[in-house]
Amino acid sequence: MRTVNAYGSINATDPLVPMTIERRDVGPHDVLIDIDYAGICHSDIHTIRGEWGEIAYPQVVGHEIVGRVAEVGSEVTKHRVGDTVGVGCQSNSCRTCEQCQLGHDQYCLNGNTQTYGSVDADGTITQGGYSEAIVTNEDYVLGIPAGLDPAKAAPLLCAGITTYSPLKHWGAGPGKHVAILGMGGLGHMGVKLAVALGADVTVLSRGTKKRDDALAFGAQRYVDTTDAAAMAELRDSLDVIVSTISAGFDVTDYLKLLRVDGTFVNVGAPSEPFTIPPFLLGGRRRALAGSTTGGIAEIQEMLEFCAEHGIHPETELVAAEGINEAWERVLSSDVRYRFVIDAHTL
Amino acid sequence: MRTVNAYGSINATDPLVPMTIERRDVGPHDVLIDIDYAGICHSDIHTIRGEWGEIAYPQVVGHEIVGRVAEVGSEVTKHRVGDTVGVGCQSNSCRTCEQCQLGHDQYCLNGNTQTYGSVDADGTITQGGYSEAIVTNEDYVLGIPAGLDPAKAAPLLCAGITTYSPLKHWGAGPGKHVAILGMGGLGHMGVKLAVALGADVTVLSRGTKKRDDALAFGAQRYVDTTDAAAMAELRDSLDVIVSTISAGFDVTDYLKLLRVDGTFVNVGAPSEPFTIPPFLLGGRRRALAGSTTGGIAEIQEMLEFCAEHGIHPETELVAAEGINEAWERVLSSDVRYRFVIDAHTL
Repeated sequence: MRTVNAYGSINATDPLVPMTIERRDVGPHDVLIDIDYAGICHSDIHTIRGEWGEIAYPQVVGHEIVGRVAEVGSEVTKHRVGDTVGVGCQSNSCRTCEQCQLGHDQYCLNGNTQTYGSVDADGTITQGGYSEAIVTNEDYVLGIPAGLDPAKAAPLLCAGITTYSPLKHWGAGPGKHVAILGMGGLGHMGVKLAVALGADVTVLSRGTKKRDDALAFGAQRYVDTTDAAAMAELRDSLDVIVSTISAGFDVTDYLKLLRVDGTFVNVGAPSEPFTIPPFLLGGRRRALAGSTTGGIAEIQEMLEFCAEHGIHPETELVAAEGINEAWERVLSSDVRYRFVIDAHTL
Repeated sequence: MRTVNAYGSINATDPLVPMTIERRDVGPHDVLIDIDYAGICHSDIHTIRGEWGEIAYPQVVGHEIVGRVAEVGSEVTKHRVGDTVGVGCQSNSCRTCEQCQLGHDQYCLNGNTQTYGSVDADGTITQGGYSEAIVTNEDYVLGIPAGLDPAKAAPLLCAGITTYSPLKHWGAGPGKHVAILGMGGLGHMGVKLAVALGADVTVLSRGTKKRDDALAFGAQRYVDTTDAAAMAELRDSLDVIVSTISAGFDVTDYLKLLRVDGTFVNVGAPSEPFTIPPFLLGGRRRALAGSTTGGIAEIQEMLEFCAEHGIHPETELVAAEGINEAWERVLSSDVRYRFVIDAHTL
């Protein structure tokens, strides 16, 4: 066991505070990672505030982790000391269920081990990336390709894969008209990835503040969702909408934009249930679907894809003492587009 | 123009009454059909009662029509006098939009001409199959294969295609676990078709009254939806659920039964919107979709499939004077499984 510095929560409401946490000894298949950067994801806040169910405190969050391998277990073959590596949302899974066998460990039927807030094999609660170091099974450690800037790559581990996976699954590519609904941490990655995949990309966002950024990221068009005429023009035109927004909203406004066989894919975490008039689906054979992160193999594929296409998240680096302010700014959508913690300041 | 006997509605609430309606002269591409049989579909009742929007009266409904060709227009090449033919839900479409070009005229982007209640090319309101004869463009007339019993085939034109189309689209076949939710007019066809397509078929229905029929139709299993233990056993197991039920219900009970990448397809007409917790979709990449009838080419394919596999709807023949009572029995689900009007009694 080793003790490492971290920044965590002692309850659902108070600001995060410096603390120490224990990391297990490096087992035969484990990798010890000295963390350099950790992204701040909205999920971190939902979790700590108990919005997704009760949790135990203290809890350290963070599942967008980039660092360097400091030590490897005796049987480790996939990573070497000094490699730049990453850890994402899941740190283990059963490996035996049908979904794990298919490489879809994000849908592990026995419930995978999340990087924070899960019960680990040893009975402890997993602690996340807002910390100096982490010990992770080698199979759940990603290689960060040389073409990616480690200081910017962390958000790919959640925001990147969470948009890449549905874009690939629902066929975003040449000849497909894809919309990204909401352009925050996830949404801005969705835009860059859909553009690189060759799709015709529309950004749907309230107001016009993000128009210039959307076009700079390569989107073909930007539609202010409060502009009724512009929304009407989009009716029956979209193959896929990837929705990244968390606030409750009326999904019927967006289902109407789908063409025949189009799919609205939710990757956000709306607090309210969706309410759907059946005719809106049947009349065009539309679908409403959901998707969660991606499997380890798909994350690695996405990282290579980003390196090849020069895709990086837009990030703002913060020191440990700036985490609480950063959380407030995430909640008020005041970030372009993802905070990354400089873990050397912990 | 010719005047033919029919049974129709003079308003939303009164019983249907005998009446006469006009049929247009047979144009160069038209077929005059002497109607032998017309199925009674729940949609007929929804339409007349104004539950899907205001309509003009008098109105004759019926979109499951089987008869014999009595006369053909000068340019007709697809049908000959004496052929046994059918007419389903749509009697025309724009033929030029992308969906019509793909053969998906059920999703005609300009709005197809429904067999009843639509504004026809000449400005009149189309009148349906509870009548002695109908004049229909040859391209929207189906050939009834010799292997089908004309007295039982009519319900295939709506109930048959409405379940066949989504079963085919979502890949029902060997190795797929398909459930049919609700076993009425549509549902019992869904069971027979899914079985013939080679799927593993579960019937989901309230109570146990229909268990024997479900197994007789070839279903591998029957689950009483009020049996919590049996429902729990089905969790995460279904590839496709085709829902044929019209009454409002809680879709979350059924979404839980879908495995990863499973789809709940609604073909019923629930009066209440669906309410869906987002996590129920994302955690398994599930989808909720809708589907409507099928295109003309697909209806013909389905008819050939039914002839080949000896699939017939279960029907109860009624005379004209029994139509009102039959409607009451449809509303109380007291029919196994579809009423067919003997049009010779009109």
